[in-house]
Amino acid sequence: MRQGLSFEAPSVRDGDWEQMLRLFIQPDTEADRAKLVGYMEQILFGLQEFLHNHVGVTEEIGLKELALGYMDSTICFEPEKKLPEVISDIIDRIAPQAVNVSSPYFVGHMTSAIPFFMVLFKAIVAALNQNVVKVETSKVVSIVERQVTARLHRLVYGMEPDFYEKYVQSTDATLGVFTEGGTAANLTALWVARNRLLGPREGFDGVEADGLAEAYRAYDIDRCVILVSRRGHYSMRKAVGVLGLGNRNLVTIDVDGENRICLPALRRKIAEYKADPRTRILAVVGIAGATETGTVDPLRKMGELCREAGIHFHVDAAWGGPTLMSDRYRHLMDGIELADSVTIDGHKQFYMPMTCGMVYFRDPFHLDAISYHANYIIRRGSVDLGIKTLAGTREANSLILDSAIKVMGRKGYGMLIDHGIDLARKLAEEIRKRDNLQLVTAPELNILTYRFCPTPLKEALLRSCGAERTRLNEKINDININIQRIQRESGKSFVSRTAIDKGVPGGGETVVLRVVLMNPLTSLSILKEILDEQEAIYREYYSSLDLQGTGV
Amino acid sequence: MRQGLSFEAPSVRDGDWEQMLRLFIQPDTEADRAKLVGYMEQILFGLQEFLHNHVGVTEEIGLKELALGYMDSTICFEPEKKLPEVISDIIDRIAPQAVNVSSPYFVGHMTSAIPFFMVLFKAIVAALNQNVVKVETSKVVSIVERQVTARLHRLVYGMEPDFYEKYVQSTDATLGVFTEGGTAANLTALWVARNRLLGPREGFDGVEADGLAEAYRAYDIDRCVILVSRRGHYSMRKAVGVLGLGNRNLVTIDVDGENRICLPALRRKIAEYKADPRTRILAVVGIAGATETGTVDPLRKMGELCREAGIHFHVDAAWGGPTLMSDRYRHLMDGIELADSVTIDGHKQFYMPMTCGMVYFRDPFHLDAISYHANYIIRRGSVDLGIKTLAGTREANSLILDSAIKVMGRKGYGMLIDHGIDLARKLAEEIRKRDNLQLVTAPELNILTYRFCPTPLKEALLRSCGAERTRLNEKINDININIQRIQRESGKSFVSRTAIDKGVPGGGETVVLRVVLMNPLTSLSILKEILDEQEAIYREYYSSLDLQGTGV
Repeated sequence: MRQGLSFEAPSVRDGDWEQMLRLFIQPDTEADRAKLVGYMEQILFGLQEFLHNHVGVTEEIGLKELALGYMDSTICFEPEKKLPEVISDIIDRIAPQAVNVSSPYFVGHMTSAIPFFMVLFKAIVAALNQNVVKVETSKVVSIVERQVTARLHRLVYGMEPDFYEKYVQSTDATLGVFTEGGTAANLTALWVARNRLLGPREGFDGVEADGLAEAYRAYDIDRCVILVSRRGHYSMRKAVGVLGLGNRNLVTIDVDGENRICLPALRRKIAEYKADPRTRILAVVGIAGATETGTVDPLRKMGELCREAGIHFHVDAAWGGPTLMSDRYRHLMDGIELADSVTIDGHKQFYMPMTCGMVYFRDPFHLDAISYHANYIIRRGSVDLGIKTLAGTREANSLILDSAIKVMGRKGYGMLIDHGIDLARKLAEEIRKRDNLQLVTAPELNILTYRFCPTPLKEALLRSCGAERTRLNEKINDININIQRIQRESGKSFVSRTAIDKGVPGGGETVVLRVVLMNPLTSLSILKEILDEQEAIYREYYSSLDLQGTGV
Repeated sequence: MRQGLSFEAPSVRDGDWEQMLRLFIQPDTEADRAKLVGYMEQILFGLQEFLHNHVGVTEEIGLKELALGYMDSTICFEPEKKLPEVISDIIDRIAPQAVNVSSPYFVGHMTSAIPFFMVLFKAIVAALNQNVVKVETSKVVSIVERQVTARLHRLVYGMEPDFYEKYVQSTDATLGVFTEGGTAANLTALWVARNRLLGPREGFDGVEADGLAEAYRAYDIDRCVILVSRRGHYSMRKAVGVLGLGNRNLVTIDVDGENRICLPALRRKIAEYKADPRTRILAVVGIAGATETGTVDPLRKMGELCREAGIHFHVDAAWGGPTLMSDRYRHLMDGIELADSVTIDGHKQFYMPMTCGMVYFRDPFHLDAISYHANYIIRRGSVDLGIKTLAGTREANSLILDSAIKVMGRKGYGMLIDHGIDLARKLAEEIRKRDNLQLVTAPELNILTYRFCPTPLKEALLRSCGAERTRLNEKINDININIQRIQRESGKSFVSRTAIDKGVPGGGETVVLRVVLMNPLTSLSILKEILDEQEAIYREYYSSLDLQGTGV
C-alpha cells in the first residue's frame, strides 16, 4: 500500500532498505522535489508566519500541565510518525508552546528575532556538515574560518595591516577560536591564562601536565585569584570552578554608582595580592556589556593597570563586542584593544542562530598554551583548527558569521546597534516620566533596569531607616516579582527580572525589571504598551494596597 | 535604482532602515515568498545536487594555494555582497573546495551523509531559535529535551518504568545533559566525578569552591588518577588537563591483542593505587567504540570491578552508543548499564548535523555536583536546564534528536548500525584476500584498520629482528603514508590514516589506513574500488621498489 508513497512518507516503517537510502539522497523526480520544497515552505512560512502573527510571547499554559504531555520514555521499534507529521507537530504543537523570542514584545533576554537569511545559512552549514576540527573534514571552510577570525581580530585590536597579512592564514599562529558560546570562550581565556601563569619551570612540566596541586608547590604559592566586578557573568565563577582554581578565588570587586568596576578598589586589591607571596593574580576581567545592566567597565584604565602589573587582562564582551561595528558607539569599547583576550558572542549582537561564541587573543601564540594533538587527526604542525580548541568536533558557524558580515557590512550591524542604544535612552526617558516607575540602572548600551516604586512608597522609603526600610524594600521587591510574573504568564510581553544588590541607595537586594533592546522591530510605542500593561497589572492587584499594612 | 529590488536584494546597501526591517520579517507578497523559496531550492538542490553528483571527496587544489584567496582581513562598511550572491558563492566556490563528507567514497572519519530531513530539522531549530538554558527562552522545548533525555537514558540503563515515570519531568532530577559534543560530555562526566570524590568535609567546602590544591590538603593526598586504555580518545587527556588534575594523571592501561583494555593490568593498577594512601582513583573509563579501532572494552567486567572498588565508572560511548538501537548488535554494549556516566554523540551514529553530544548519569542526582545559579536566570529550584550544564546558552539540538527518533524508530537506526557492521566484516574478508594488504585491527563495530604490506616485505619482516625490523617497519609506514596522501590528494576517495603502537606483532608505531563505515550508500563494490585505487597507486609508485635498498 505504501509503495507509491515512498518519498512522500520517508520513514522506514516498511523496513525497506531502499526507502532508507532515499533518506540519504536527494529526490530525483519533479514530484519528489516539489514535496521537499513543500516541507521547507511549511518551515519557512508556516513557522515564521506563526511566529510573526502570534505577537505574544507564549501561550497560556503552565509548565506542569504542559509536561504531562511529554511523559513517555520509550523509543518505539517502528517509526512513531512520518516526516510531514513530525514537521506539522512542531509547527502546530511545539511552536505555540515555545517562546516567541522573535516577538518585538519579547525584550527580556539577549535573544531576539534574527534576520531570515540566518536560517538559510544555518541550513547550508547543516547540508555541508563540515567538521572544522580538521582540514580533512572541512578544507576551505577551515580557511574561511581563519579569515573571518582575522576580520574580527582586526575589528577588536586593529593591528597594522602587515600583522594580518602575516597571520591571517598562518598555521603557526592563532588569532582566536570559535567556541560553543560565551561560557566556553571565557573558560578558554582563563584556561590559557592559567597555563601561561603556571607554565613549565625546572622540575615541573607545567600545570596542564602536572596539575594544580603540583603547580602550587612548584611556584610555592597557595592560590591564584581572578578579579572581576560584582557584575561579572556567572560563567566566570563556573570557569574558575571547572579549572580547579576554586570558585571562591574569583574575587568580586565593588562597583561605582554607575555599575562599573571601582578602580580604586581594584587597585587596592591588586596591591594587596601582589604583596602576598602566597597568592598570584591569574587574570583581571573587564566587562563590556554586563549581563544585568549592560554596563561597560573602564577598559582602558584597567588595561593599563594590568599591563603595568603584568597581569592577563581578559574582557568579556560577549554582549558588547559588536558595538565595535557602530561608528557612533564604538567609542564605548575604548581600551578593549589592551586586552590579552576578548570574548564575543555570535548569537547575541551578531544576530546568529544559537549558538556561537568566540575568543580572540592579542598575541597569536598564546593559544599554544592549550594545544592538544592526536594521531589520527590534528597532528602536530598541521593546519587543523582543532588543535587549540576546547571542543573536538565543531560546527562551521564561522561560515554563517562570514556570510552575515558580507550581507550586512559594518553599516548594517551598526544600524542595529544604534537602534538598540537610542531606543534604550528613549525608554529611560519614558520611565523617568512615569510616577510609578523608578529607573534603577540607566542604559549605557541597550540594556536598562527599572522597578515599580509608586510615589507613596518612594516617600515612605525616604522617611524610613533600618529594619523599617528593609521591610519596605522587601514589599517593593514583592510587587515587582508579581508584576513581572503576571505579565509573563499572560503571554503577550516579556521583560525579565533580576536582583541587583544595592541597586538603589540604601537598598539591599533590589528586584528590578530588565529590558534588553536588540530587536529592530521593537519600537518606543511597543515599549509604552508594555509599560502600560504593567501599570494596569499594578492597578488591578495593588490599587487597594494597604499602605498602612506595609507600615507606611 | 534599487527601490524595486528591496526583497530581491536584501542588503542594507542603501542604508534604509525599512530595508533592514525586511530582513527580520517574512516576505508578505507572493513574489517575495517565491524568491525566498528560490533561495531555499538553491540550497536544498543546488548544494545537494553538487554534493551527490560530485562523488569525489574534494577538488584538487592545495591548501596553500587555496588560502591565497582568503587573505583580506577587513570588514567593509558597505555590504560586500547581496544575499543571492553569497549563497551562490557558497554553492559554486565554497562547496567544491570543501570536503564532500556525504560521498560514499568518504570512509575515513566519523562523518558521513545524513538523512535529508536533518537539514530541515536544523532549519526549524534555527527558526525557533530557542535557548534551552532556561524555560523563559524555551518553555515546551525544555520539556521535550527532558523527555528525549529520559528516552536515551532508558535505552542505556533500562531502569524500571516507575523510575522514568518519576523522573522524566522531575525538576529535581537530571538524567543527563546535552553538550556541544563528546569532549564536553566527557569533561562533564569527569567534572562530576571530581566534585563528588572531593566534596565538602569538615573545614573544606569542596573542590569546586576551594580548588584542587586545597582539596588535596583536606583529603591528605597528592594526586587523583583516571584510568583508561591506551585506545582512549584524546579528549580524556584534555578534560583531565582542563580540570586541573594534570594530564599526566590520566594513566593509560595496556590493551590485549584485540585492542581491549587488559583486565589483569587494570586490576593491578587499581590495587596499586588503592594501596597508596596519597593517591585516589577519580574514575575508570571504558571505551565503547574506540576512535581508532572501533573496539569495545569489556564493560561488564570493568563495571563490576569499579562497583566493588567504589570507583566512578565512565563509559565513552560517543561512537558506539547508538549500537543499542540495533537488536542484532546491542549485545556488543553489554554492561554499559553498570556505568555511572555514559557519553553518546548525536552527530555520529545518530546522524545528526554538527554538533550534538550527550552525557547520561545512572543516578539522577549526580549532576547536582556541578550546579550553578544566577540571579537573572536559572534561579535555584527552577526548572531551567542550564543549572547543570557546562554551557550557558544552548541550541535545542534535543528537538532534532527527538524528531529523528520519531521518524526513524529503533528499526531505522538499527538498520544503519547493522549495515555498517556487516559491511565492515565483508571489507575485512576482502582485505584478507588481497596479498598486498594486511588487516591490522579486525572490526568489532564498523571500524577497521589495515595497511599495505606486500608479500616480500611481510616475509622479510618475519626473517628480521632488532634495528633491521625497525627499519623495515619504517619503510612500510612510509609506503602507507604516501598511498593515503596520494589517494586523498587525487580527490576521489578518502580513508584516514593513524598510527597504532604495537599494531602488529613485533612492530613499534604502526601506520595504518582506517575505514569508518556509517554511510548507507557505501557498498562493498565502492570499497573494492577504493582498494583498487590504492593498489594502483602502490604499483605506480612502488613497482620499482628497490627491495635491496630497503635492506631486504
